[in-house]
Amino acid sequence: MNIAVLGTGTVGRTIAAKLAELGHEVVVGTRDPESTMARTDPDAMGNPPYSVWQADHPGIRLAPYPDAAAGAELVVNATGGSGSLEALNLAGEENLEGTVLLDISNPLDFSRGFPPSLFVSDTDSLAEQIQRAFPGARVVKSLNTMTAALMVDPGRVGGGDHSTFVSGDDPDAKKMVVDLLTSMGHTDVIDLGDLSTARAAEMLLPVWVRLMGALGTPYLQFKIVR
Amino acid sequence: MNIAVLGTGTVGRTIAAKLAELGHEVVVGTRDPESTMARTDPDAMGNPPYSVWQADHPGIRLAPYPDAAAGAELVVNATGGSGSLEALNLAGEENLEGTVLLDISNPLDFSRGFPPSLFVSDTDSLAEQIQRAFPGARVVKSLNTMTAALMVDPGRVGGGDHSTFVSGDDPDAKKMVVDLLTSMGHTDVIDLGDLSTARAAEMLLPVWVRLMGALGTPYLQFKIVR
Repeated sequence: MNIAVLGTGTVGRTIAAKLAELGHEVVVGTRDPESTMARTDPDAMGNPPYSVWQADHPGIRLAPYPDAAAGAELVVNATGGSGSLEALNLAGEENLEGTVLLDISNPLDFSRGFPPSLFVSDTDSLAEQIQRAFPGARVVKSLNTMTAALMVDPGRVGGGDHSTFVSGDDPDAKKMVVDLLTSMGHTDVIDLGDLSTARAAEMLLPVWVRLMGALGTPYLQFKIVR
Repeated sequence: MNIAVLGTGTVGRTIAAKLAELGHEVVVGTRDPESTMARTDPDAMGNPPYSVWQADHPGIRLAPYPDAAAGAELVVNATGGSGSLEALNLAGEENLEGTVLLDISNPLDFSRGFPPSLFVSDTDSLAEQIQRAFPGARVVKSLNTMTAALMVDPGRVGGGDHSTFVSGDDPDAKKMVVDLLTSMGHTDVIDLGDLSTARAAEMLLPVWVRLMGALGTPYLQFKIVR
């Protein structure tokens, strides 16, 4: 499958590498490839610059947002939540028309410091904001409730015995995402319902952040026991 | 221990019965015991009237809010979230001074129909509103993330292998609650931190409601796999 991953941070790199490993044709989208490749310092999270990662992943092409999105059967929004709408605007509405858009971002607001609050919640969600801005895209929310390493390697905690949520209005788009999740090792994918249920999935972030603090690790997962 | 349970609905009854069974001296608080006992119709949830339940639980006294709270070492707020501050005001600030106040309510707003939204979230919580209104009380948030039957019988799903959260500013109050939870069969109690972490615990309700819809059962629990 032709997949565009928008975002060059840890989440984007992790997802892109896994999807390429699974045999997909992966392009990473960024605002300006030249400036992304020109950076030589580690990013704010201490990750090596993109060029170092790129050298380790020669099969993954870096392209401007619109080039990456054009022709992709699946676009993964792995940009930071506060910049997602802008990145998708740059990708171009025409390039998202009819495309499955897997949104794994979170509406985190760090303006008050840590822990972050949410810039949208409860009666609306970032996933719905994206859907309203790009009515032709087939938005599916998933994977936003776990750290990047567990998105692509769920077996890393509890032998993979935990739950992953999906929300979306388009059954076929949701099925494509569920199949992709299954191929990455997610064994208990729970369909929460239409895209408005992304409000609930995004509202898991505050407890995730608190749990990371209380337990001292980001390697934690929600399992729905029933 | 002398325990007052405020609220005569399913949650209050379930908790009161379990605490009495564990050997505690339990009083249930209500606005007006005579009118509570005079009701003969099932409540909005289809539960039998309180008098029927009372006849099955002769060892549990029904009292006006202030009488119930006076002298209690632990007050359990099992009233509906939208009426909690009013019920606690009726109980009387002087009767909550120094008392451990276990808040198991949720700030559910049904004014827009179902699913409910939250009338406070993200940057504040109902637990914190209660703490600010009653600065002498020692507020601990817990048990709000599960249906009443699982609060008192966690083994009913997954053999009890799931997680329960506590939040609070007073370490001794939190310890009292954790001991009580342990006595009720909760095996993985996670201390999220100070009372501001109740925001995160209360924000679990939207996904709980959506999961109940998706899975078709309220007998579900969060387990934090790590």
